[in-house]
Amino acid sequence: MSMKQDKALVLLSGGQDSTTCLHWAIDRFGRENVSAISFDYGQRHRVELECAQAIAAAAGVPQVCLPIDTFAAFGGNALTDAAVEVRDELNAETGLPNTFVPGRNLIFLTYAAAYAYSRDTGHLVTGVAQTDYSGYPDCREATIKALQESINLGMESNVEIHTPLMHLSKRETVELARDLDALDAMALTHTCYNGEKPPCGECPACLLRAKGFVEAGIADPLLADA
Amino acid sequence: MSMKQDKALVLLSGGQDSTTCLHWAIDRFGRENVSAISFDYGQRHRVELECAQAIAAAAGVPQVCLPIDTFAAFGGNALTDAAVEVRDELNAETGLPNTFVPGRNLIFLTYAAAYAYSRDTGHLVTGVAQTDYSGYPDCREATIKALQESINLGMESNVEIHTPLMHLSKRETVELARDLDALDAMALTHTCYNGEKPPCGECPACLLRAKGFVEAGIADPLLADA
Repeated sequence: MSMKQDKALVLLSGGQDSTTCLHWAIDRFGRENVSAISFDYGQRHRVELECAQAIAAAAGVPQVCLPIDTFAAFGGNALTDAAVEVRDELNAETGLPNTFVPGRNLIFLTYAAAYAYSRDTGHLVTGVAQTDYSGYPDCREATIKALQESINLGMESNVEIHTPLMHLSKRETVELARDLDALDAMALTHTCYNGEKPPCGECPACLLRAKGFVEAGIADPLLADA
Repeated sequence: MSMKQDKALVLLSGGQDSTTCLHWAIDRFGRENVSAISFDYGQRHRVELECAQAIAAAAGVPQVCLPIDTFAAFGGNALTDAAVEVRDELNAETGLPNTFVPGRNLIFLTYAAAYAYSRDTGHLVTGVAQTDYSGYPDCREATIKALQESINLGMESNVEIHTPLMHLSKRETVELARDLDALDAMALTHTCYNGEKPPCGECPACLLRAKGFVEAGIADPLLADA
């Protein structure tokens, strides 16, 4: 493996999981070899993108944000409004009201791979996990492995997609952040589905996050800041 | 297979190959079960999108055009200008000056699959071919098969990607269009890399197209119109 191929690109949403992955990548590949990519796809809570920027800056890694207007076209034009409502209910945890696209992680990872390709970056890192997210087929290990193969065939590349949280519970993810000395970064993350800061503490995302910290016996730095 | 799953979505660029595929799909699935999808990704020659619209209308099938602004961001921001120039030279036949993205057919097909998913459409049809296009890894059969698997895992779907031109030469593609009574539609297509109408007749795309018609012993309806 060449030096160039030791560079890693982290998909950074601004949430707890991708932030933990950013610090996992820094630990694994070295800060100077890590960069982050975020996507502005019209998410309801713009605070996510601000968080991603702040998290990358605090970690001392470059970050790029690519626009994706296609998802909004799915919501506003391609799907009927009624169909969008159904998707919204089915996917409350994504916080994607009018812009839900099935398999959107396939799109994110393919764009990230194309970006990495042009920069001699051989590693992608994403916070998708099977545990606690069983409803999401595009977060599963089998999907990611198949996508890695189609990307490498389609780009004649040799990229490796890392999913350090794939089989971790929320508790174990918190413990990993602690072991990586990344708990301070958790204060910068955004989780709440309602987009509130301080977080509402009542939505499914807040409850899941709280469960992980409680089970790990660690105080959530985000709440300490609140 | 249910009736709904017999619906097909054709990726329609406005070129000779995708137009042949549109008529292949009409022949195979029935006109009432076929629709077309195009992508406005900032292509240099806007005439392509106008052609796609006219071709779908002439064929009597509905067409949707989805915007993709992400490719332009790759060209303008993500890649250096110098790197974009290189890509341009390497990929003259795409006509994608500042917006080339490696593996862009992966993106097109994934968006098409997401669109099809929400409309109970089980078949995608694309004009990619290994023959005459050996330089494009995202046009190869192995890539398309791997992508089909990752899409179906990632969306928990059962979509089938059809590539009727995969192993055809240009001559055979012309003969297929003739056999499908689709030669008239060829007069509406756009091929010329220089975006000229009538076509310049000198660019690689014009020459390849001419070769196919000559070898098939058929007059190109596009030139007859000129």
